[in-house]
Amino acid sequence: MGPFAVFGAGSWGTTFAKVLADAGSEVTLWSRRASVAESVERDRTNPDYLPGVVLPESLRATSDPRVALDGAEAVVLAVPSQSLRHNLTAWRGLIDPSATLVSLAKGVELGTLRRMSEVVVEVLGVPENQVAVVSGPNLAKEIADEQPTASVIACTEHDRAVALQEACTTGYFRPYTITDVVGCELGGACKNVIALSCGMAGGLGYGDNTVATLITRGLAETARLGVALGADPMTFAGLAGLGDLVATCSSPLSRNRTFGERLGRGETVQQAQAAAQGQVAEGVKSCSAIRELARRHGVEMPITEVVHRVCHDGFDPREMAADLIGRKTKPER
Amino acid sequence: MGPFAVFGAGSWGTTFAKVLADAGSEVTLWSRRASVAESVERDRTNPDYLPGVVLPESLRATSDPRVALDGAEAVVLAVPSQSLRHNLTAWRGLIDPSATLVSLAKGVELGTLRRMSEVVVEVLGVPENQVAVVSGPNLAKEIADEQPTASVIACTEHDRAVALQEACTTGYFRPYTITDVVGCELGGACKNVIALSCGMAGGLGYGDNTVATLITRGLAETARLGVALGADPMTFAGLAGLGDLVATCSSPLSRNRTFGERLGRGETVQQAQAAAQGQVAEGVKSCSAIRELARRHGVEMPITEVVHRVCHDGFDPREMAADLIGRKTKPER
Repeated sequence: MGPFAVFGAGSWGTTFAKVLADAGSEVTLWSRRASVAESVERDRTNPDYLPGVVLPESLRATSDPRVALDGAEAVVLAVPSQSLRHNLTAWRGLIDPSATLVSLAKGVELGTLRRMSEVVVEVLGVPENQVAVVSGPNLAKEIADEQPTASVIACTEHDRAVALQEACTTGYFRPYTITDVVGCELGGACKNVIALSCGMAGGLGYGDNTVATLITRGLAETARLGVALGADPMTFAGLAGLGDLVATCSSPLSRNRTFGERLGRGETVQQAQAAAQGQVAEGVKSCSAIRELARRHGVEMPITEVVHRVCHDGFDPREMAADLIGRKTKPER
Repeated sequence: MGPFAVFGAGSWGTTFAKVLADAGSEVTLWSRRASVAESVERDRTNPDYLPGVVLPESLRATSDPRVALDGAEAVVLAVPSQSLRHNLTAWRGLIDPSATLVSLAKGVELGTLRRMSEVVVEVLGVPENQVAVVSGPNLAKEIADEQPTASVIACTEHDRAVALQEACTTGYFRPYTITDVVGCELGGACKNVIALSCGMAGGLGYGDNTVATLITRGLAETARLGVALGADPMTFAGLAGLGDLVATCSSPLSRNRTFGERLGRGETVQQAQAAAQGQVAEGVKSCSAIRELARRHGVEMPITEVVHRVCHDGFDPREMAADLIGRKTKPER
């Protein structure tokens, strides 16, 4: 599979472009800002998003989508989830109609409640088996540092997943294939909300038991939603479910966890946002869409409900633990 | 249910005795050393195992098993797993034949490959529905500090689990019931081995992706063994599987994780043992029994195999990651 165009030169887009190049694939990285593309081309670095990482010689970069897409047979989408529709609409006419679309974006679109692969299918008018999703315990900085990492490639067309797997397997990056796109994407979207709750617990002074309980019950509510939407429950026990969730909730590198810690220490969403260079954590946005999706399908998601109330209804996170632990004792399932 | 006798005044036994007393149950804590029992009775503390924690006024303590067992209708076993058989044999004649036996011990007996509840059934000659197991993300120090914690009580007799649940539910400790004793015990035994592997990865300088991958694949191999032994696979997605594993692997309080870190930094088992006041981590012992159990049932457990080779065959942990990541790429399941 390839040549590849990777859209989005943030930390994960740049890292995945490096993985592809290290695996021997032909790759052009598109950056919105010309200065980032120049830095990659000239200095083999992306100092804003991957400071200290030397990028492969073979990696090309540009800020012109036409240049990136010229001859591209696979297009990797690594732009923020809430701007994917807008971006894709702009690039629509330039993308080869038979190209494989690879989504790295994690989230559920506000308003439409669409998963990212659904947005791709809708905007580009391609069949769903042309879209693949990459997810897993994939903190970009660690992969860029070539630490051994496993990942998941989900595509309803198994052979396409295998071709992408071959195009991105390196000594440090080991992708597994699955066909459950729904489960893979939901795991990636919901983990940001659970990471916010783990951050809040940490900020409130709670320790590893509480965080482990939130991870366990959070994965259970994610799986409940997934099953209601047609996902395979086993996906949530795998790298795109449990693996991604544990990496995100444990890591001091996780923006959602850090954002939640600030909320737990009593800061408002606005204060936490100001501290994060004006960026609001992805889970703050996703929790509304996921809650809405859960309500529409009659699925109970108590942790997502609590996170939503803290982030959007001014609820006090100190009441969160009491609220979750104070529920009536019962069988585990 | 009750009165309770709690055998073993280490950190978890003492903490569980506190939970029972705080829940309003009548409890006597047995300690092997008279000085610990005296300290609990006189000062309401167990400075060796729970420094800084004030124990409830209602908690009794003794070093005489006859006193502890006098009138006890429930006996909690919190002694080290490899000495459970020896201890139980000594107490056998003193235990009410109709008492509920509650196992807090985690591990598989070397030689016999018996789970702890099987040892209880064998030594005391009681039916298996008289034995309950408590497990979950339960770092003792955090529960003793009254941080909100969920737990699991497993008993093949549901009503007995519910009676125990009522006897130990407090504002900070929330137990759920399940009937899958096999899954609950295997989760508790295998997590120590996985925690050793996570510690080794940390000691080698690997980050959260690697640890999350080991947790995910470690839980998958635990579930494979569990299913082969008759466990319900869903137990491993719950608090006694995932929850306990995540708490153990994340916590700096975990002895197995710390022990593994020393091995990852290049120390021998003997050096790591010397640094741990002469104690060898539970996973070092369990990995042999679990590997043997897996081989006997034809189950592949690659992480357990690697941990065993490092701990018992002098294998270099630096080769571990290469060995695990270097396996051929394939579907996730």
